[in-house]
Amino acid sequence: MTFSPSDPGFAARVRRSFEAQALMRLLGASLERVEPGEVDIALGHRPDLTQQHGYLHAGVLTAVADSACGYAAYTLMAEDSEVLSVEFKLNLLRPAAGEWFVARGRVVRAGRTLTTTAADVFAFGHRGARDGTLVATMLGTTIRQSRHGGPDP
Amino acid sequence: MTFSPSDPGFAARVRRSFEAQALMRLLGASLERVEPGEVDIALGHRPDLTQQHGYLHAGVLTAVADSACGYAAYTLMAEDSEVLSVEFKLNLLRPAAGEWFVARGRVVRAGRTLTTTAADVFAFGHRGARDGTLVATMLGTTIRQSRHGGPDP
Amino acid sequence: MTFSPSDPGFAARVRRSFEAQALMRLLGASLERVEPGEVDIALGHRPDLTQQHGYLHAGVLTAVADSACGYAAYTLMAEDSEVLSVEFKLNLLRPAAGEWFVARGRVVRAGRTLTTTAADVFAFGHRGARDGTLVATMLGTTIRQSRHGGPDP
Amino acid sequence: MTFSPSDPGFAARVRRSFEAQALMRLLGASLERVEPGEVDIALGHRPDLTQQHGYLHAGVLTAVADSACGYAAYTLMAEDSEVLSVEFKLNLLRPAAGEWFVARGRVVRAGRTLTTTAADVFAFGHRGARDGTLVATMLGTTIRQSRHGGPDP
Repeated sequence: MTFSPSDPGFAARVRRSFEAQALMRLLGASLERVEPGEVDIALGHRPDLTQQHGYLHAGVLTAVADSACGYAAYTLMAEDSEVLSVEFKLNLLRPAAGEWFVARGRVVRAGRTLTTTAADVFAFGHRGARDGTLVATMLGTTIRQSRHGGPDP
Repeated sequence: MTFSPSDPGFAARVRRSFEAQALMRLLGASLERVEPGEVDIALGHRPDLTQQHGYLHAGVLTAVADSACGYAAYTLMAEDSEVLSVEFKLNLLRPAAGEWFVARGRVVRAGRTLTTTAADVFAFGHRGARDGTLVATMLGTTIRQSRHGGPDP
Repeated sequence: MTFSPSDPGFAARVRRSFEAQALMRLLGASLERVEPGEVDIALGHRPDLTQQHGYLHAGVLTAVADSACGYAAYTLMAEDSEVLSVEFKLNLLRPAAGEWFVARGRVVRAGRTLTTTAADVFAFGHRGARDGTLVATMLGTTIRQSRHGGPDP
Repeated sequence: MTFSPSDPGFAARVRRSFEAQALMRLLGASLERVEPGEVDIALGHRPDLTQQHGYLHAGVLTAVADSACGYAAYTLMAEDSEVLSVEFKLNLLRPAAGEWFVARGRVVRAGRTLTTTAADVFAFGHRGARDGTLVATMLGTTIRQSRHGGPDP
């Protein structure tokens, strides 16, 4: 599926918003790729991001998958928009074992108000490795709000 | 609904597992209450836990709601069990504004292998305040695994 | 939670819309109760509504749960509104065995555009029996649209 | 993704189970394709399958998507297995307008006990038309049970 963003400055707008997500800094997450309708966010393994068995906590996987979904939707929104998550579902497919993780968010359907999104989270043996393993998948919904007082969800 | 745990040491077992979740320490989350089939996890607002509008990031809400769900399920499991999240859905009802947050997880249905759980996340003006505001709600599934080599999900 | 409907004719409006859902007739479902923010839809067991083990098919449980959620939301909407389902999740807790089923939908949070809803589906040994068994639970989202050309989702 | 079924008779086994789903007959649904990890179920529009605006009811879309997911999982299970739906989420992307609908279910991850599945539902102007429109998408979980008394979910 190919998308035509209405705002040519979509990538810079996404990067500014990502920079304002303080949690991404706390987790060490980085915005790796911003394309129309598709965004990658990456994250290295750290011992302080884990659950009781030493794998990445589902909350961390959710954080990067949800931001990847939201920003994938945001690439296609008008310049004066804000994006908010409405809801999402995450399925955990395998233990999140690895040294490097990439959450790839994409737009499934862009509506005027709501955008349906999906994300896959892949684990890699090291940064730059090929052939990641799919460890989690998300399906969710975001809503567009006008920065100038648009519809309240 | 009232539940009868098969393991009288369920509360200590939950606390040990919670202590092993390094992410909970990073987020400043604490285990506030452990009852049969019900667990509360609390969290204070911190600027480094926020999304682009200054509210708690959905990943943080998910982290405490998912742990509250998992440990609610874990209270009812046999002594030699491990608990894993299979999947969950989170609906974001309002901006997560407040100074103190409590995720209350509960068991909806405890099966032999799978346990269905739910959690509500409430925001409060300050720690110890009454009358929280419901900001998010979760519905999810966990799986029991035997510590001694039980069924692999 | 108590809700104050803005449209005093909400119950008649819900009943008219329910009558227009042809699928409800095909399934033999009936609208049993319409209160502000809460709606019950009932259904008898029929052999032609089953899956391969003779229990009600998840699609049938979803049909009544989704309609109960949608109409629970619709009770609180303005007179000139239409309601549409955005998404839902259903957890199947036990085999849907029984002779009579009731889906109880309720509003979790009513926003200006989006309403978050939940439903529980109970199975009974016969119509009018007390003490139903919870067989499925739903968490979902609906959107309000103006009949006169409102926001397109 | 390619899968190797352990049971060479998987297709006949899926067809026998589909024939036993009485609801599929009531809805007029047919099993169109059975491949390892992938199943298509088709359905014609009928006025008695609709919601209040004349589109297919979400319960009908769910019925075919859930069966497509369950049978996609079932293709990969051992010969003595039964398949049950644990939970699913459906996102409704557009009004389900059209004359012919195909639900395409696929396995995302096949585990020993649990299988994660997804389905897309496409609408077509007529049977045999190309270029369907994606109207709904599902993400769900199924569980394997042994026909000879295996783990109870």
